Amino acid sequence: MISVAIMGHGVVGSGVAEILNTHKQKLFAAVGEEIYIKYILDLREFPESPFAQRFTKNFDDILSDREVRVVVETMGGLHPSYEYVKACLEEGKSVCTSNKELVAAYGAELLAIASQTNANFLFEASVGGGIPIIRPINQCLVANNVSEIAGILNGTTNFILTKMIRESMGFDDALKLAQELGYAERNPAADIEGHDACRKICILASLAFGRHIYPDAVSTEGITGITLSDVEYASVWGGVIKLIGSVKKLDKDTIDIIVAPMFVPGESQLSNIDDVFNGIMVRGDCTGDVVFYGKGAGKLPTASAVVADIIDSIKHLRSRKYLSWADSDNSSVLPAEKSVTAMYIRALSDDRAAAYDKTKAIFGDVHLLEKAGAPMTELAFITEPMPLYEIEQKAALLKSAGVSIASRIRIGDL
Amino acid sequence: MISVAIMGHGVVGSGVAEILNTHKQKLFAAVGEEIYIKYILDLREFPESPFAQRFTKNFDDILSDREVRVVVETMGGLHPSYEYVKACLEEGKSVCTSNKELVAAYGAELLAIASQTNANFLFEASVGGGIPIIRPINQCLVANNVSEIAGILNGTTNFILTKMIRESMGFDDALKLAQELGYAERNPAADIEGHDACRKICILASLAFGRHIYPDAVSTEGITGITLSDVEYASVWGGVIKLIGSVKKLDKDTIDIIVAPMFVPGESQLSNIDDVFNGIMVRGDCTGDVVFYGKGAGKLPTASAVVADIIDSIKHLRSRKYLSWADSDNSSVLPAEKSVTAMYIRALSDDRAAAYDKTKAIFGDVHLLEKAGAPMTELAFITEPMPLYEIEQKAALLKSAGVSIASRIRIGDL
Repeated sequence: MISVAIMGHGVVGSGVAEILNTHKQKLFAAVGEEIYIKYILDLREFPESPFAQRFTKNFDDILSDREVRVVVETMGGLHPSYEYVKACLEEGKSVCTSNKELVAAYGAELLAIASQTNANFLFEASVGGGIPIIRPINQCLVANNVSEIAGILNGTTNFILTKMIRESMGFDDALKLAQELGYAERNPAADIEGHDACRKICILASLAFGRHIYPDAVSTEGITGITLSDVEYASVWGGVIKLIGSVKKLDKDTIDIIVAPMFVPGESQLSNIDDVFNGIMVRGDCTGDVVFYGKGAGKLPTASAVVADIIDSIKHLRSRKYLSWADSDNSSVLPAEKSVTAMYIRALSDDRAAAYDKTKAIFGDVHLLEKAGAPMTELAFITEPMPLYEIEQKAALLKSAGVSIASRIRIGDL
Repeated sequence: MISVAIMGHGVVGSGVAEILNTHKQKLFAAVGEEIYIKYILDLREFPESPFAQRFTKNFDDILSDREVRVVVETMGGLHPSYEYVKACLEEGKSVCTSNKELVAAYGAELLAIASQTNANFLFEASVGGGIPIIRPINQCLVANNVSEIAGILNGTTNFILTKMIRESMGFDDALKLAQELGYAERNPAADIEGHDACRKICILASLAFGRHIYPDAVSTEGITGITLSDVEYASVWGGVIKLIGSVKKLDKDTIDIIVAPMFVPGESQLSNIDDVFNGIMVRGDCTGDVVFYGKGAGKLPTASAVVADIIDSIKHLRSRKYLSWADSDNSSVLPAEKSVTAMYIRALSDDRAAAYDKTKAIFGDVHLLEKAGAPMTELAFITEPMPLYEIEQKAALLKSAGVSIASRIRIGDL
């Protein structure tokens, strides 16, 4: 019998307890012994829970119990998650977490502690919910030099964009619907402003490139500025707008990493990933593109990924899984303004013909997008690929020539 | 330093040697020591190879060398692969293979031997080439009861069908093009008759359901009978024709497993998987649908999956990976005629109106497919779901009423 503790009895934590209970037989077959939930840490009371007797409000019960070899962290947030996880790892207890914020902020440090105490720090559930992604990148694609990872990493924003694309629903209505369906929080900022996707692409980038990339180094745009007009122009262009987290290796010391809405071409596998689903493309030098698709959130998908980590921890109580990356000072991140991209621009002016002439004079060749029923004041076009600072300069010139810019969205190279 | 041997220097085997050579540094970082190719077994001469000195024609050199802890089998075919792999496992050497024919025919026996000698028998490359699938099912989805797996498992047939769908190319021309491009063998039977896909779905079924399913128990249809007319009717219906390997768990003792061309609805993630790409959907009770997509064949994708297995074997020289299934007598396979499916039927008769009346009288409600420019002698429809034997009976009735059946293709429930 192996004793585990679960810290946090919210959506994911209660799902972990549920799966350990409902899938007992299958899990017994997988590890060869029973997994026993000895403690559940939560400040709230759960008198109706089948595990009611095992609840504790005292973290030290878990920390000081030598029988507890594996601890699950599903509290979320940074504190006290960080302090608790660190203390467990220092005691040589393995930790399995679904907490992307924690991994993105403290991954390098916690992995280093785990390495010192021969414990495991695993976080399959932190990216892509139930989609296998951390282990496949780390183990299955180990014989590849990964050059790029790009993904739809946030289900809430993908649901909102899908409603805008398929049903011409406005952003505000789509957000409201997402909240009603429980896909979006009452305070949706972390999702719609791209911070959640940013944490996830940071974790994937750290894993693939071996250096911790901190979220504050990553240029992050959300989807709050996307209009139905932009959605329609994307369709005219032959694609859809998706919120993409992307990282590319430019050379051995430089990565280009960003979270932003992008025009995704219809041929891309990522263009068909709708609703709350996530999809992640990993480009390896041997495999070419590999895409992983599934439910990126939700109680049981996420909890089942945590349970897979528990199993793996139990099977590697003595031999550590190889999973680590070095700390870094973010110096390998290309400054956002040097990132090269083609750009969709929707401009407004009183005189469309004159605006087009000015655009050509400033941007050179652009690809005009013509949409039936577009206002006569609107000019939508796609620039050639160029560094972002150059686009900014040209956009400023356009503005001083009397043409204002209503939207600009990157063209994804996917 | 860890010594390995590679048996077979064909496409995949030479790719394994190449990756071990070109990715030395990355692999060293992953395992913490050098991987040294001590022997390459092949009856042919490769004087230009950088490993020319290490070639042997004598299997006993590998078997008797105690330094060789991991052996790669990329010879293909059943004999002498089976005898060599068995001998290696009996000696306690781990074996990594890309040989789906071997795993589908002898997997249970070889896994049992590996278990006895505490060696590993790994075969990530045997299904889906470079796509991670064996390890994700076995490890990442371990906390799920898998109810269904369905996939496009053969790149050659998918290429042919894509040409038929996208470019209205006839089957024979598409096959010829596939051969010219090196996607199809000169003797393409194993691909176009579905046997390759059958071996792969057998491996996935064995893994997911814990009992060896042998290919000869699986009803297998290829794509040789698919016409452009069927492709067009699939489009009218709202989908595409794909060669699908599928397995469903009906109850704890029964699985429904088949390889056949199917109508795949446009909304299914599998409908967008084109050309030589493969895609595999795994349905778990916790995760819901998870889809894996990528290059299902080719030298470096497949070889990189073998190298991932080599790494895993080296990391588990003492502690065995948990990967096994029991032998079985195929009694859990539902007889094909009892399998329930809706069916597309393209019927021919002199009198279309009369044929429709007869169809309604025999099949009850059917969904008619109307295609512009269809011959007046043609009646295409989709039946309600029913067991295959019932469809056969009704089709026989239709035939004796003077309506012949030109095509019938299952409607995929995907």
